Amino acid sequence: MENEAEKKWGFEVKQELNREREAEVAAFRYAIVSLMESVDKNDPRPVIPLGHGDPAAFPCFRTAAVAEDAIVDSVRSSMFNCYAPMFGLPLARRAVAEYLNRDLPYKLSADDIYITLGCMEAVEIILTVITRLGAANILLPRPGWPFYESFAKRNHIEVRHFDLLPERGWEVDLEAVEALADENTAAIVIINPCNPCGNVLTYQHLQKIAETARKLGILVIADEVYGHLAFGSTPYIPMGVFGSIVPVITLGSISKRWIVPGWRFGWLATNDPNGVLQKSGIVGSIKACLGVRSGPSTLIQVCEMFLLVNK
Amino acid sequence: MENEAEKKWGFEVKQELNREREAEVAAFRYAIVSLMESVDKNDPRPVIPLGHGDPAAFPCFRTAAVAEDAIVDSVRSSMFNCYAPMFGLPLARRAVAEYLNRDLPYKLSADDIYITLGCMEAVEIILTVITRLGAANILLPRPGWPFYESFAKRNHIEVRHFDLLPERGWEVDLEAVEALADENTAAIVIINPCNPCGNVLTYQHLQKIAETARKLGILVIADEVYGHLAFGSTPYIPMGVFGSIVPVITLGSISKRWIVPGWRFGWLATNDPNGVLQKSGIVGSIKACLGVRSGPSTLIQVCEMFLLVNK
Repeated sequence: MENEAEKKWGFEVKQELNREREAEVAAFRYAIVSLMESVDKNDPRPVIPLGHGDPAAFPCFRTAAVAEDAIVDSVRSSMFNCYAPMFGLPLARRAVAEYLNRDLPYKLSADDIYITLGCMEAVEIILTVITRLGAANILLPRPGWPFYESFAKRNHIEVRHFDLLPERGWEVDLEAVEALADENTAAIVIINPCNPCGNVLTYQHLQKIAETARKLGILVIADEVYGHLAFGSTPYIPMGVFGSIVPVITLGSISKRWIVPGWRFGWLATNDPNGVLQKSGIVGSIKACLGVRSGPSTLIQVCEMFLLVNK
Repeated sequence: MENEAEKKWGFEVKQELNREREAEVAAFRYAIVSLMESVDKNDPRPVIPLGHGDPAAFPCFRTAAVAEDAIVDSVRSSMFNCYAPMFGLPLARRAVAEYLNRDLPYKLSADDIYITLGCMEAVEIILTVITRLGAANILLPRPGWPFYESFAKRNHIEVRHFDLLPERGWEVDLEAVEALADENTAAIVIINPCNPCGNVLTYQHLQKIAETARKLGILVIADEVYGHLAFGSTPYIPMGVFGSIVPVITLGSISKRWIVPGWRFGWLATNDPNGVLQKSGIVGSIKACLGVRSGPSTLIQVCEMFLLVNK
């Protein structure tokens, strides 16, 4: 065997091909992570991580006992060790539909729900669907959650930013939205309750967003990962309430409300009482995207039980 | 509001863009699934699903009590509800290293292990890394597991097939491998124990594969998802045993041996005592790929405990 140091191997990563992915990692992990990592460990002053989206990291927060019980029961039953169906276990899909239906003026069925690896995979799925629309652009809030930008960049989706207006309680600048949109605009992303601003949009403002989207003929992607975590006096209203005005793709998870982001249980829901998403091929494309990936653990999918219990 | 039927929407899936993904779903789900779906449900004869890779579907198979206990303990501890680090929980990485080290002549550290969503995500990660090598081709076994082909097709990796030889107990046709490889060949995939043939390769033959790969200067991707499930008298030897001859990327999971494919716990291990993978950028590229996806549930990662217990 020749000397190891002299051996020539036929696999060498092309750095220019790797760079795009590395840039995405950098964008996704944010400046805040680098900042935290460069904090002087010997400095006795405590650091409050304001950019921290993981309440489970703090011992004062613990999930509900029913959530733990649901997982324990499902493990002990031995009934959930098989591969799950591509779109999620039927009981999990039914449970999420029932959970969302509490706040909707119409009824979702289990078929409107797709179980994902937290809300993050739901974002990946719907943005992958956007790439199937041809040269589409999407409208993103500023400030927002930078994963949208980094995923869009890697997948060559054009991004246009509209501002959230601090002087109006971080409402969407709807005039800017109308000015930004053109015939290639496919969707607008609304994060409510807002990440990072923490505000909750009113019923009236959400309705205006829906009407604007309808006027522009675009889809609403409603990121409701912080759903029901409403500070202040404005009640949380899901965007799906306006599904008869405009088709709404709702993205959610149990990560924040149940303080279990590590469990990786989320969903994508099609709020579309008029069947527009089926007709435009969006539903078929969602299904195709879900058909080729490794979904969430079955055990976690059974946490549906506690979503139901927690009525 | 105008009539719903007349409303023009600005999002319509381009069927030619969707087709590629749908073809991949079709390839991945195999003919066998379509076959099973078209079985006459009213025919009283029982159907034996010989293409079924999920023992958990049969009530006679049940996972070990220690596996269930590990999950229950981790749920009850409330210590594993946070987001997991990108490469997996340190305790899970250590446990898999220790598990693999039982059969290796050198020692892997936790840093050599990356926790994935079953073995399937490990395959996705290493094939994504292959796309970072430039115009590389890979050598795949025939017969094999068709997910390799479907993923390669979507990601424009050229595939070349070598035969497994039935008259030699499904050994690799090493002469064909040498004839197929050229200066753009990056890797050879070895599935042992073999899916779908069920044979187990001997120590001597695995060593010959390693020597051939070294001669060709290519990486060995060792799919050992069926590791330790050895029928017949040939003992199972992990490819990593030959890591000092050629760098080996081992892909594995608990799905088959512990009868829990629905739990989604797998790994990618770099068997590389000579540090070739670090130098060629493969390790950096693996890390970059893992940095932008939603990893496995933390609760499932804690099943390391039972891997350790089951010594």
